[in-house]
Amino acid sequence: MSHFVPPVKDMMFVLDQFIGLDQLSRIKGCDEIDKEFLESIYDSASQIASEVIAPTNVDGDRMGVSLEKGKVSVPRGYKEAYGAYVSGGWSTLSCNPEFGGQGLPSLVSMPVNEMVMAANFSWAHLVLLTNSVIRAVETHAGSSLKDLFLKKLIAGEYSGTMVLTEPQAGSDLSALNTSAVPNGDHYKITGQKIFITWGEHDLSENIIHMVLARLPDAPEGVKGISLFLVPKYLVNEDRSLGERNSLEAASIEHKLGIHGCATCVMNFEDATGYLVGEMNQGLYCMFTMMNDARIGVACESVAIAERAYQQALTYAKDRVQGEAHGQKGRTTIIHHPDVRRMLLKMRSQIEMMRVLVYVNTLELDLAGFDQGHSQRADLLTPITKGWCSELCQEITSIGLQIHGGMGYVEETGAAQHFRDSRITTIYEGTTGIQANDLIGRKVIRDQGQELRRLIAEISSEIKALDSNEQRLQLIKEYMIHSIAMIEKSLDYILQEHPKDPFLAGSVSYNFLMMMGTFMGGWVASRSAAIAIMNLKNTEDSEFYEAKLVSSTFFIEQCLPLVDSYSKSLMSGSVSTMTLTEDQF
Amino acid sequence: MSHFVPPVKDMMFVLDQFIGLDQLSRIKGCDEIDKEFLESIYDSASQIASEVIAPTNVDGDRMGVSLEKGKVSVPRGYKEAYGAYVSGGWSTLSCNPEFGGQGLPSLVSMPVNEMVMAANFSWAHLVLLTNSVIRAVETHAGSSLKDLFLKKLIAGEYSGTMVLTEPQAGSDLSALNTSAVPNGDHYKITGQKIFITWGEHDLSENIIHMVLARLPDAPEGVKGISLFLVPKYLVNEDRSLGERNSLEAASIEHKLGIHGCATCVMNFEDATGYLVGEMNQGLYCMFTMMNDARIGVACESVAIAERAYQQALTYAKDRVQGEAHGQKGRTTIIHHPDVRRMLLKMRSQIEMMRVLVYVNTLELDLAGFDQGHSQRADLLTPITKGWCSELCQEITSIGLQIHGGMGYVEETGAAQHFRDSRITTIYEGTTGIQANDLIGRKVIRDQGQELRRLIAEISSEIKALDSNEQRLQLIKEYMIHSIAMIEKSLDYILQEHPKDPFLAGSVSYNFLMMMGTFMGGWVASRSAAIAIMNLKNTEDSEFYEAKLVSSTFFIEQCLPLVDSYSKSLMSGSVSTMTLTEDQF
Repeated sequence: MSHFVPPVKDMMFVLDQFIGLDQLSRIKGCDEIDKEFLESIYDSASQIASEVIAPTNVDGDRMGVSLEKGKVSVPRGYKEAYGAYVSGGWSTLSCNPEFGGQGLPSLVSMPVNEMVMAANFSWAHLVLLTNSVIRAVETHAGSSLKDLFLKKLIAGEYSGTMVLTEPQAGSDLSALNTSAVPNGDHYKITGQKIFITWGEHDLSENIIHMVLARLPDAPEGVKGISLFLVPKYLVNEDRSLGERNSLEAASIEHKLGIHGCATCVMNFEDATGYLVGEMNQGLYCMFTMMNDARIGVACESVAIAERAYQQALTYAKDRVQGEAHGQKGRTTIIHHPDVRRMLLKMRSQIEMMRVLVYVNTLELDLAGFDQGHSQRADLLTPITKGWCSELCQEITSIGLQIHGGMGYVEETGAAQHFRDSRITTIYEGTTGIQANDLIGRKVIRDQGQELRRLIAEISSEIKALDSNEQRLQLIKEYMIHSIAMIEKSLDYILQEHPKDPFLAGSVSYNFLMMMGTFMGGWVASRSAAIAIMNLKNTEDSEFYEAKLVSSTFFIEQCLPLVDSYSKSLMSGSVSTMTLTEDQF
Repeated sequence: MSHFVPPVKDMMFVLDQFIGLDQLSRIKGCDEIDKEFLESIYDSASQIASEVIAPTNVDGDRMGVSLEKGKVSVPRGYKEAYGAYVSGGWSTLSCNPEFGGQGLPSLVSMPVNEMVMAANFSWAHLVLLTNSVIRAVETHAGSSLKDLFLKKLIAGEYSGTMVLTEPQAGSDLSALNTSAVPNGDHYKITGQKIFITWGEHDLSENIIHMVLARLPDAPEGVKGISLFLVPKYLVNEDRSLGERNSLEAASIEHKLGIHGCATCVMNFEDATGYLVGEMNQGLYCMFTMMNDARIGVACESVAIAERAYQQALTYAKDRVQGEAHGQKGRTTIIHHPDVRRMLLKMRSQIEMMRVLVYVNTLELDLAGFDQGHSQRADLLTPITKGWCSELCQEITSIGLQIHGGMGYVEETGAAQHFRDSRITTIYEGTTGIQANDLIGRKVIRDQGQELRRLIAEISSEIKALDSNEQRLQLIKEYMIHSIAMIEKSLDYILQEHPKDPFLAGSVSYNFLMMMGTFMGGWVASRSAAIAIMNLKNTEDSEFYEAKLVSSTFFIEQCLPLVDSYSKSLMSGSVSTMTLTEDQF
């Protein structure tokens, strides 16, 4: 089992050089943040991630969680990790200072989230879902609910869950039928919910469930769903814990991965709940948090991929097998070209994904103040979530492959990342849902205007790349070609979809993957340019040379996929839609 | 858990229409085989696969195997399945009639193998590895060993294992150090071996281990390895079982998948073994079976993928979620374009893979009689093994994805296929090993001659496609473009590799995947042409229409990858080879 070291240097590269710390000052209410301050945060976070949380990862997978008489048992070390995280103030980073938070931008907390998720993906769900609940309560709850719950949630004394899915209502929430019946100042919530992450545990003293349910006589479908805050223990006005609410974990899902995460079936039976937001506006309330949740999954994808990379790299430097040109006798497998190809495929994609996640996070930070940033964030989020989570599958699979036969043996640990990662293309909206959102709501709805703005910006950045710099020539050429393919594909979609109601759905996946790959190419281009600039005046040439190599590798080995995605999407919907159900 | 129905109709399409049964008559010693005969074989095999073997699959995964005091316990139903398989004569299909076999071509038994592997992949390893042992004994053992063991192996009374890997010797067998010391008419074998599939069990009365070991004073490396037959129980001259040999299963690997397969660590301590083939020629003996083993894994990949497809299809026809254009109200997810895209991605790739496996198998059947077929089989095998096993990863992953959140829950069964399939790119030579074999021994060594012959054949077939047939126009155009890319890539490799010792290794993966995709395109082209021909004069238009759609879908959605693989490989080795070990 390899040690995990958070990639603080690469995180700082993204924040300080790719994005630029001056960008943070554009976020209203954000004080100037300097490099030293960030480094000190990340060094501390790195320490707790690698020394306290990461060691719990293996037990989390092997021992897993269990449920007996409604109580969830967690692996050893979880309680200590939770205590260290909370007492270190890590749960408060980007929360509202009015309720005890530190008020930092999400962009500042995202690298910390990445570290925590890489350290123990299962465990991290507990603290990161709580952030979503905090956001929901802060944005939509009335002041008395805020007074009662927000400080405790931010302090980590309470944790939170998102309670959406029912057996018949997954991607399609319109079908949910958990009921909420008015009862004085509150509601009685009844129904069964599934896939509730950390629905039960005793790491925090209370659990706040955000539950979607239907009021009596509510309109059918998505317009009749309301959001309720349903605590595990009722809370008295003096903030002391009151009686146990009538809800319980009925069972724990037996999953492919994230064994160290209690994914519960929850039964609510006349449980006391409080309305959050307006009646029948539950889905709207949820959607305001959707971008956060999705970018969170994209960040998870980077995190698991990074952990898998570190493990594969350690193995490749250690495992002796075969001979390689230029090496004397039998040699470690890192000297075999195809193993290097695999390592670079992992590494280069991870680096591009990380930048895209952080850039998207900044757009979300800015979205509240500016319509342009809001549109950009809306456009990017499905791309970032869909593409990063899909790549995470490939990356963790390569990580396993590098281990050869040992990768297939669970004790090695490579298989855990492969299993854990498999959830990322599914939850918070499957890749298909992201792709539909992207092509429908984010591109077709505004006739591609925001996307054209993005392409124009990237295009002028690419054109400005120094043509005399030989190491940028190939990149420039590939990107100019890719831009043309993207434009052609966009024109095709805008032109054809009005004639063909099946077109958007049929080509949406290829469109999303094409856009993700293209954004990766943009990241690689700018990264390469920054690296070359730094190579001229730095003592840290090893780092920038490596950055130039991984960026170039991405351009050579990944960007060409833009062509095939584009070609495939321009085949339209006929082959996809022709077969009858029986012909399948 | 979905029922499994072997795709006999598609198998017959490949044998009867794509390949043509007349091709079988080119195999020396093969009597004429007609369609009715094959259909009767496959209908019987289909019955045992779906009714006897397939029901053991879930228990195989959930209960798995266990080892106590050297004895392996197997899940319920395994013994009955083994009995039914053996008593039905299925183990004898393509074995030598001199020892009780039925002498049919491998091409005839391959579809049966596919059914059995799809029915229970873990269980099937037992009977299919025995086939490899039979081949080894028949090809390389002396007559007394043949007399003693071959009939019982063919009859399924004995089973067999391949005993190669040691902890320090995986892909690189040169490093193995199990020893063999002469002792009268036999040898004493001592050493520890890992990853021994079905190394111990009591489903058969004896187990025949084919063990690679080193004689005293043998040359170092691969030239000092010999092959030994080491039975679990010694066999007396009257063929009765003698005493227990001194070997045992020390433990069972805890694996990501194939839980229903006993993968053992085996200890040999002065175990009695018999030399098979010449001294120090063990690796050569193994290599004569390598093509069989590799095409076997390719066939497994088709099998697991088919099973995953059937399960996903059943779910897609059953699961109601969301609304879709042209459907009234909430509808089953098979009506969502992106779900159809996923199903067709699975299906079209499976169909192309199946043909490639069967075509390659025919070349292996013909290889013994004709140098041309031997070279063709050698060229195709690493492509078929590498490409099919890589695609199997994607297909089983899509299968899981179609199930949404339910796919991540183990009870659904989709995750099992995803886990099981993950071994196929690793054993019998990783994809990296296949890729190196392809580019080095099969292409560069003969200066691309055999590959150029293959390209020329495909090229003239494509040129002969009817240009007036509108449904073939696109296919023809795409294939002509792909042929040009393949030729360009081949020229590049042949021209550059003498100048760059790292080139072949750096581009080998892209080359293999490009070739596999291209071969898939060839299969799709011929399949489409056959389908169109049949549509003119058949009552079974549903089948041929579907075949035309899946073939066209492959051309549109998969073949464009030839471009990106080609572009990536022509980037050469620089980015792959530049980083120092520390820079990773």
